[in-house]
Amino acid sequence: MYTLYYSPGSASMVVHLALLEAGAPHELELVDLDAGAQRAAAYLKLNPRGVVPTLVVDGQPWAESAALLMLLAERHPDSPLAPPPGTPERAAWYQWIVYLSNTLMSAFRLWFYPQDLDDTPAVRAALQRRIEGVWDFLDANLAAQGPYLLGERFSGADLLLTMLMRWSRNMPRPATGWPALKRLADLVRARRSWQRLYEVEGLREW
Amino acid sequence: MYTLYYSPGSASMVVHLALLEAGAPHELELVDLDAGAQRAAAYLKLNPRGVVPTLVVDGQPWAESAALLMLLAERHPDSPLAPPPGTPERAAWYQWIVYLSNTLMSAFRLWFYPQDLDDTPAVRAALQRRIEGVWDFLDANLAAQGPYLLGERFSGADLLLTMLMRWSRNMPRPATGWPALKRLADLVRARRSWQRLYEVEGLREW
Repeated sequence: MYTLYYSPGSASMVVHLALLEAGAPHELELVDLDAGAQRAAAYLKLNPRGVVPTLVVDGQPWAESAALLMLLAERHPDSPLAPPPGTPERAAWYQWIVYLSNTLMSAFRLWFYPQDLDDTPAVRAALQRRIEGVWDFLDANLAAQGPYLLGERFSGADLLLTMLMRWSRNMPRPATGWPALKRLADLVRARRSWQRLYEVEGLREW
Repeated sequence: MYTLYYSPGSASMVVHLALLEAGAPHELELVDLDAGAQRAAAYLKLNPRGVVPTLVVDGQPWAESAALLMLLAERHPDSPLAPPPGTPERAAWYQWIVYLSNTLMSAFRLWFYPQDLDDTPAVRAALQRRIEGVWDFLDANLAAQGPYLLGERFSGADLLLTMLMRWSRNMPRPATGWPALKRLADLVRARRSWQRLYEVEGLREW
């Protein structure tokens, strides 16, 4: 049994999707970020940095959404989350998850919380360039050997990428403006897990 | 057999250390960053983004040092790189590797290549604060439940952390100024893998 501390549409989304893809029984606990619930003493005991998500596994709390995706894939090897160990796709799977996490997740954090660095037009423009450069790179890869990050095979890396694409929807150039990225997002958005998450989290906007 | 494309002291270091810890036969290929070898056509075929490291596994090239660390740990389960699947330490292992990669690796990239964002004193000061905030957080964790990231048990996450600590050696406040971080670095620097890497890569400075 798992308990996921989540906020709708936040980085918890990929963990929630992974639980649904794995068919893993879980409970959800809403963390109301607008009300500052992530800084409540009870939550800080689970997650000392006060960030979402936290996944409680066998009674112990863990953080970092990309790490939780990999942990769930390992604990549910019959799910479609990851290719089997020993295959070339397995190396690609690790590579893409770390790449997305290092580049997009860290850039989006600064995009949404610019005060963490320096909230100037020059920094914002540079962050936008960085994010768009990642879309360029991913789109070229997917156009050459998609439709998924691992080629013909869906994996949890596509869940992570689609969540990150969604975060760009109000940017000057949303990720869905890149054709191979849009194709991947359409495939992921058609999955039962994605649709179920929208119902449960009460999301409307793409 | 593995082939590691490396540059001394760069992010390839953790992959080189992982190969040594696993006792995995490997060849090394130097990428002369000062000479721009990372942008040579032959290298770009292996690594389209022109970054170090690249690890060739069974004839296929892969990137992202934290991903390569996890891949090597999986391929060499008898090495000390990772705790066994299914243990609580395994969740901690994923968490720390992703945390280090998301926070420190991305911040150091901007610290060393400030032109990628905006090279102003305010941005530099903010990056320094971010990096030092990570040292604060890690040091508190290690003081409470060290000496390693997983407690009593050494793992590849400690190799990644020590490499990142090393990158701070010329900053205003190097990571070794934090006592529990220094204790961890001393343990890792005493390992045969670390000493062997220094010989092979010709490193001198800590």
